[in-house]
Amino acid sequence: MSYFDAASAAPLHPVAREALLASLDEGWADPARLYREGRRARLLLDAAREAAAEAVGCRPDELVFTPSGTQAVHAGVSGALAARRRVGRRLLHSAVEHSAVLHAAEVHEAAGGTRGELAVDRTGRVAAGEVGAALGPDTALVCLQSANHEVGTEQPVEEVAALCREADVPLLVDAAQSLPWGPVPGAWSLLAASAHKWGGPPGVGLLAVRKGTRFAPQGPHDERESGRSAGFENIPAVVAAAASLRALRAGAETGDEAARLRRLVDRIRERVPQLVPDVEVVGDPVHRLPHLVTFSCLYVDGEALLHELDRAGFSVSSGSSCTSSTLTPSHVLRAMGVLSEGNVRVSLPYGTAEAEVERFLEVLPQVVRSVRERLGVPAAEAGTARATAGEAGHATREPEAVEPAAGSGGSGGESGGLVVDSLGKRCPIPVIELAKVIGEVPVGGTVTVLSDDEAARQDIPAWCSMRGQEYVGERAAERGAAYVVRRRA
Amino acid sequence: MSYFDAASAAPLHPVAREALLASLDEGWADPARLYREGRRARLLLDAAREAAAEAVGCRPDELVFTPSGTQAVHAGVSGALAARRRVGRRLLHSAVEHSAVLHAAEVHEAAGGTRGELAVDRTGRVAAGEVGAALGPDTALVCLQSANHEVGTEQPVEEVAALCREADVPLLVDAAQSLPWGPVPGAWSLLAASAHKWGGPPGVGLLAVRKGTRFAPQGPHDERESGRSAGFENIPAVVAAAASLRALRAGAETGDEAARLRRLVDRIRERVPQLVPDVEVVGDPVHRLPHLVTFSCLYVDGEALLHELDRAGFSVSSGSSCTSSTLTPSHVLRAMGVLSEGNVRVSLPYGTAEAEVERFLEVLPQVVRSVRERLGVPAAEAGTARATAGEAGHATREPEAVEPAAGSGGSGGESGGLVVDSLGKRCPIPVIELAKVIGEVPVGGTVTVLSDDEAARQDIPAWCSMRGQEYVGERAAERGAAYVVRRRA
Repeated sequence: MSYFDAASAAPLHPVAREALLASLDEGWADPARLYREGRRARLLLDAAREAAAEAVGCRPDELVFTPSGTQAVHAGVSGALAARRRVGRRLLHSAVEHSAVLHAAEVHEAAGGTRGELAVDRTGRVAAGEVGAALGPDTALVCLQSANHEVGTEQPVEEVAALCREADVPLLVDAAQSLPWGPVPGAWSLLAASAHKWGGPPGVGLLAVRKGTRFAPQGPHDERESGRSAGFENIPAVVAAAASLRALRAGAETGDEAARLRRLVDRIRERVPQLVPDVEVVGDPVHRLPHLVTFSCLYVDGEALLHELDRAGFSVSSGSSCTSSTLTPSHVLRAMGVLSEGNVRVSLPYGTAEAEVERFLEVLPQVVRSVRERLGVPAAEAGTARATAGEAGHATREPEAVEPAAGSGGSGGESGGLVVDSLGKRCPIPVIELAKVIGEVPVGGTVTVLSDDEAARQDIPAWCSMRGQEYVGERAAERGAAYVVRRRA
Repeated sequence: MSYFDAASAAPLHPVAREALLASLDEGWADPARLYREGRRARLLLDAAREAAAEAVGCRPDELVFTPSGTQAVHAGVSGALAARRRVGRRLLHSAVEHSAVLHAAEVHEAAGGTRGELAVDRTGRVAAGEVGAALGPDTALVCLQSANHEVGTEQPVEEVAALCREADVPLLVDAAQSLPWGPVPGAWSLLAASAHKWGGPPGVGLLAVRKGTRFAPQGPHDERESGRSAGFENIPAVVAAAASLRALRAGAETGDEAARLRRLVDRIRERVPQLVPDVEVVGDPVHRLPHLVTFSCLYVDGEALLHELDRAGFSVSSGSSCTSSTLTPSHVLRAMGVLSEGNVRVSLPYGTAEAEVERFLEVLPQVVRSVRERLGVPAAEAGTARATAGEAGHATREPEAVEPAAGSGGSGGESGGLVVDSLGKRCPIPVIELAKVIGEVPVGGTVTVLSDDEAARQDIPAWCSMRGQEYVGERAAERGAAYVVRRRA
């Protein structure tokens, strides 16, 4: 049993557990009360705030505890935007922020604000210069994560913070993934984080607002936490969160554990493409979180892959459309322009044994192979996979090939080509069907895939790029869209 | 050491502690994930929701967990108001709601909504008929607590719910104080509660929205908890909250503990006025929470009283202005028109021993006497208190008596009376100074108290009513206000 999804939630750190137990008896009372139980609770809260502020790199009076990282982000974004309302109403954020930032931005937009999305490169990083160029006189706030939660890529926060400082624009850093590994450098203005990402208990987020940053808390007034987070303080959890962050930092500062996990991740990055055909490892190989790696497997249904890995004793996560309740592929992978199908995120908790990683590398190839086999991936396409003609129904059925509809506003290039009707089929079927027929058209000919699965928009171009085929473009169809591919090889 | 402030926060119930410990190891993972740790967390969350829903008296799919009772109220009020926006924008709430409701109402008003405050009688109760009469075609929502947090008085929730149902207006019940003692009866639409009030851990609130109630969650979108409460679920705390609520209900249903605490409170209600002169026990003596009683002591500084009780080993709370950081007296006591000075709220936790209550009754008279002595209360006014002439400076100084200012727009009645300048003096000094000089004017003569302490507005009329003197009224003064009292006895 190996839990490799620390980026979702880390198991409770032993120090957190111990601190939680101790403070259940000492920290349950209302810290606003003057009697002994209240004073005791206040002392614990103050001490936790000092410890957390030290780990964040801010003053204790700049830091409040919130009930979650999500709420820290929501409160930080809305409070900073409201305080800057007279300066401007434009919010800038990277295209790969956590959904908490994106949802806060949606609220801002619905209330009449505007926003600009900062593009990322294929590794998932924004260019600091481009952020600087986007800053305008009406920019109210910039949001940038310290490191990406899906692919691990670190952002140039320090440079962006300097450019923001120069332009007198506040920068909010979502440090949810990186905070256990070290403080966020630079002159950021606001910072949000989440304790359950570092082995603290659930129920604790951090919001730091540095002095000199204008801030106007939104929502109903509440006296607690400097008016920045409503509701009775969760002191036992806050104490546990601060204690475990301090303990992790003590470990991280020696660098041993971070370096060890970094080596394990390097091993996965190196071995997976060797062991599994048609895999793309994504994210920056060097400027990244120590414990996290993501790869995508062609011709694989992400949900089936996760299920098989779970059966084999590995708990991993996926940004693949197939496992998301929203049926849209990860906005992070989309913004990077990389394959989303068969996506696997491995994020190692503290203390992961090397043997667990080795076992994962042993198990993974066979798991991918078996999923591909069940999907009827053509043998020629997936090196080690065998075609399973005559096995499962949908896997062996030939795709319907029809003439392109007359007057369908064609882009010109696909006349005379094949049309594959993948309507109603979910990822990765459209890509598999494309792969099956590409050999049937002559070099220079086209295949048009009709698909109403949102993932096709991302994965068909990604397949072309991985396979050396030409992605011609997409056009609207009666249902879904028509994606045109020209055979090059 | 006796902790008598369960209404602020109850110590962790042993069942909550046990459930919390067990679920720290089982419930830390993300319940939205499909791997084993996620499925295990989901099972715990689902079971907790079922148990809590049963205790609330709703369906599991009608109930979500929030990070606090405050946030449950905020989310409930904003979501119900937003969904009813087209019907109307008028919010009705009692004058004695918890500040969480009042602050949510302020946000509604700031956004262009209107609100109406439902008056209470001297026991703190609204009249159901008056609520019914206040319902109009533009009423979007009614908020009514099940029982008051400061004085314990139960509200006629069932009758009000029936009237609301008839008028097709949703009713939100803040059940924070009453839920451990039993489900809220009647056809309410929304209900909010807070686990740390019943010995559950901090960090858990409940929000129930019954089917058929229109509801539009406000704030940034979040997929968790049916989109009604943002942020990662705090499953260990939720499990502990549900387990302890079920355990308490099992006890409450036998009625033993509730009945036992009710008898202890009856004893306090009966004995305090016998033991301490010039005390007003407030709130409904019968239709009340079993464990809570509030009384106010004339000529006492609430903060000093709480401090002395803390020294004597009793942790109690106060709605007195003197202990509040806002320097305004409790809005609950003000709405009831009762004395706010020297206010003490006793709320007994489960399992409070009779001996603790007896010791409190032994200690209280001497504590009140000593506070009064230090404040220089005239012996004639406070039966058992002795005047302490020549002791502390401010306590023995005679109040300045000056002629009323010419052309001060007098109400006519006070000409020729005494004027007491209590400007800059905090409660209970203005009332003490009034009491000291009332004997110096002839029956029919007046004393005018100049005061800029907000509590005087409430406590001078309350003193008149307790002392059989006539409260003539107040008028604006250069600083603060002038309160006019006519000697009747």
